[in-house]
Amino acid sequence: MKLVTVGSVAFDAIETPFGKTDKIVGGAGTFISLSSSFFVKKQGIISVVGEDFPKQDLQEMEERGIDLKGLQVKEGEKTFFWSGKYHNDMNSRDTLVTELNVLEHFDPIVPEEYQGVPYLMLGNLSPQVQRTVIERMNVRPKLIALDTMNFWMDIAWEELLRTLSMVDVLIINDEEARQLTKEYALIRAAKKIKAMGPKYVIIKKGEHGALLFGEDNIFFAPALPLEEVFDPTGAGDTFAGGFMGYIAKTDEISFENMKRAVVAGSVLASFSVEKFGTQRLKEITVEDFNKRVQEFIKLTDFEINSI
Amino acid sequence: MKLVTVGSVAFDAIETPFGKTDKIVGGAGTFISLSSSFFVKKQGIISVVGEDFPKQDLQEMEERGIDLKGLQVKEGEKTFFWSGKYHNDMNSRDTLVTELNVLEHFDPIVPEEYQGVPYLMLGNLSPQVQRTVIERMNVRPKLIALDTMNFWMDIAWEELLRTLSMVDVLIINDEEARQLTKEYALIRAAKKIKAMGPKYVIIKKGEHGALLFGEDNIFFAPALPLEEVFDPTGAGDTFAGGFMGYIAKTDEISFENMKRAVVAGSVLASFSVEKFGTQRLKEITVEDFNKRVQEFIKLTDFEINSI
Repeated sequence: MKLVTVGSVAFDAIETPFGKTDKIVGGAGTFISLSSSFFVKKQGIISVVGEDFPKQDLQEMEERGIDLKGLQVKEGEKTFFWSGKYHNDMNSRDTLVTELNVLEHFDPIVPEEYQGVPYLMLGNLSPQVQRTVIERMNVRPKLIALDTMNFWMDIAWEELLRTLSMVDVLIINDEEARQLTKEYALIRAAKKIKAMGPKYVIIKKGEHGALLFGEDNIFFAPALPLEEVFDPTGAGDTFAGGFMGYIAKTDEISFENMKRAVVAGSVLASFSVEKFGTQRLKEITVEDFNKRVQEFIKLTDFEINSI
Repeated sequence: MKLVTVGSVAFDAIETPFGKTDKIVGGAGTFISLSSSFFVKKQGIISVVGEDFPKQDLQEMEERGIDLKGLQVKEGEKTFFWSGKYHNDMNSRDTLVTELNVLEHFDPIVPEEYQGVPYLMLGNLSPQVQRTVIERMNVRPKLIALDTMNFWMDIAWEELLRTLSMVDVLIINDEEARQLTKEYALIRAAKKIKAMGPKYVIIKKGEHGALLFGEDNIFFAPALPLEEVFDPTGAGDTFAGGFMGYIAKTDEISFENMKRAVVAGSVLASFSVEKFGTQRLKEITVEDFNKRVQEFIKLTDFEINSI
């Protein structure tokens, strides 16, 4: 097993200018593991669902090489549910409903088979749960990446800093980076975050691409300009899953390889937003992926001589 | 003469979180021509100032190969003056003062020496003035680029559309592109703009870089992540000047060459914001430029194999 993901497996109900869904399967853990399954044929997930979660979707995850021994199914309880409505610009959204349900008292279990895993992706969850998973690993993974959000900065600042000091890669969006560091310039924010622990910092800027900071280098990957962003839900998690999946598959921790991983994550995220939920993510073929990688190359490639 | 710029030569008073200036020399025409003078050793400017405009600054422009036969000096009148204050994020600003002065009745003169110029850059001004310059050219330039802003969309919509139909390249920012087309997705906005006339569309996204659309291709140039944006005033004009200066110098109208020109403009703009007004722009050496081009290449360069 090369990769373990920690993150919510949940229900989402989404409303965008293009339409709305009933409860569909979502959650950070779902998006991350489905995305990384594009690169990693055997991985684990640590999460929790209620008895209402469809068996069919669990089976689909297993078929994609996602081992479910770390996924607790709580009889008599309900799955985490989030409902949100996107504004017309698709860059901001209102949360309509948050029902924590099984997540409220989530005590993560690390199955014996997951011990010794080299790559650990901590999706957005309470920093205390994220830290517990690290502490329950008998051997520290080679690379631990963490995603978080402003909510935890507001209510669990000290816990977050403590967990942050234990990881190698922080993946967050630009507004979160600014809130975490009180710095507006992202290059300064990244420096402050590196002083908090992570050696690598990835700042996601949505439709404006992503910046990778590490080893005194900066890399910028654009987002593919899309005619329609149908549903942005899970795009950041898809990015994180693609990033860690690529690193786990290639098993090389270097700035050069992280650049490729950032492109891989951006490519998968560009697919993810084309349909509601995880739908598009399940359809991507190797040919789709390779073709879109070429579009990314073409988008930013230029040759210029010194003047 | 390879290039003629039309645009304001003006006074600015600027307040940023880093400090404030008295009246300093600014204006779209000033930034564009100073920026393009980095590439073009002989060019013209069509503009107007009052008798209060410092002779010293005009002399400096001439020393940089900017011919002033097209710059009218109105005795007894005052130069255009703009004053603004930037917010903490440096991405938005309030206009404090706008005194049109000589710009109010500006009737542009095209000197005989400017006739037959191959490249024409129409900086942000009333679309009626921009169109008048095109109409007063005996031979249509090979390439006409135009910058505009939301103000003209609000008060001179029909005039703007008419002028837009006469140019080859539109250079505007993202919010302006959205207002012009009522499309949020920039790829759709660019399509609509192309239907209005311009064959090429450049959408500036400030700290998020710039997109070039044309010949069914898209190119994205990032902005260099900067620790401090000291004064963003004129960054867009510096970009436009660098773009057109590069095209005029290399004298090649193709998507590939426009990509290089977009990078050249981005590089010059990244210098411009480092000091107040035009100060930094006057200091840049060829070595500075070439070094920063390498930083741009390093920022976006990646190699990835098909999976």
